[in-house]
Amino acid sequence: MPYVHIVTALAVLQFIVFGFRVAAARERYGVKAPAITGNETFERLFRIQMNTLEQLIGLIPGLYLYSRYFSPYVAAALGVVYLLGRELYAFTYARDPAKRSVGFGLTFLPMVILLVGGIIGAVRALVYT
Amino acid sequence: MPYVHIVTALAVLQFIVFGFRVAAARERYGVKAPAITGNETFERLFRIQMNTLEQLIGLIPGLYLYSRYFSPYVAAALGVVYLLGRELYAFTYARDPAKRSVGFGLTFLPMVILLVGGIIGAVRALVYT
Amino acid sequence: MPYVHIVTALAVLQFIVFGFRVAAARERYGVKAPAITGNETFERLFRIQMNTLEQLIGLIPGLYLYSRYFSPYVAAALGVVYLLGRELYAFTYARDPAKRSVGFGLTFLPMVILLVGGIIGAVRALVYT
Repeated sequence: MPYVHIVTALAVLQFIVFGFRVAAARERYGVKAPAITGNETFERLFRIQMNTLEQLIGLIPGLYLYSRYFSPYVAAALGVVYLLGRELYAFTYARDPAKRSVGFGLTFLPMVILLVGGIIGAVRALVYT
Repeated sequence: MPYVHIVTALAVLQFIVFGFRVAAARERYGVKAPAITGNETFERLFRIQMNTLEQLIGLIPGLYLYSRYFSPYVAAALGVVYLLGRELYAFTYARDPAKRSVGFGLTFLPMVILLVGGIIGAVRALVYT
Repeated sequence: MPYVHIVTALAVLQFIVFGFRVAAARERYGVKAPAITGNETFERLFRIQMNTLEQLIGLIPGLYLYSRYFSPYVAAALGVVYLLGRELYAFTYARDPAKRSVGFGLTFLPMVILLVGGIIGAVRALVYT
């Protein structure tokens, strides 16, 4: 499981870095809290952060479930794909939101595989015991 | 625990479906990323997604804690109530936000029972050991 | 682990209380769902809730990872610092968003220590086995 734990913590730290960029953009573009609109660059960085939060709520349980029923090594490898995909997502979204699809897919797919794998594993455990 | 794992993954997949509806509404109503306002239907679907995220952060640890100290079967059953309540919440909110209360209650209550049950179980474990 | 479980559930319940304040502000200031803007006080309470959600996604896995590799007692103690820091954050942000930094730091630091501790522990486990 240590590989899965490292990926879990890295995924959250990546999210925290995205949050730092939002905070820095608040300063740079004068978007005073509690506002979350008013500058296009700020809004892009904010959406990158929020979308990553939406992915983490699936990734983290998914990593755990897949590890438990199948392989923690495969789970960690899918987590690495997620981490790289998120970097691509953040990079492309910040430049042009219309080009965020590939990066999104590379984080969305691993997450769904982990979750669906978890369901399959749990159903199998119920059937064969 | 398999029942709890299935409910956990289903709750996240339900959230993902709500996210798909937001993405579809972006296209249909021309709400270009990173905007999150500008069309009433889009905003309702967006709030359904966000509110579900707020519930998942309580539901998932709650399922685990309640299972650990009490019963994974009761936890999974409360999770099923949550899943159905969320469907009702999403259905009613999309039609009329003022009517979202019943669906909200049916997801909020199971989540709070799971969490408070977890605290009671943990305190009991500390006292009786 | 019971101390960690209690802190986990309390952190979510604290978040739920922040959510109640948002719901109450909706009524008081006439910010009809699905709107999330239009009144400064509402927006502050909404951002307190959202920022707390962003912290919980790191705190909860962090508590678990740190407990596993180091000490559940230290993890729970860091969690208590988080809980108090969040109260300070919410209190100061609601009055003046510019003064939210100290409270933010008192929740951000424990979360990062828990996560980085988790990575260090996992790497050590890989190296020494």
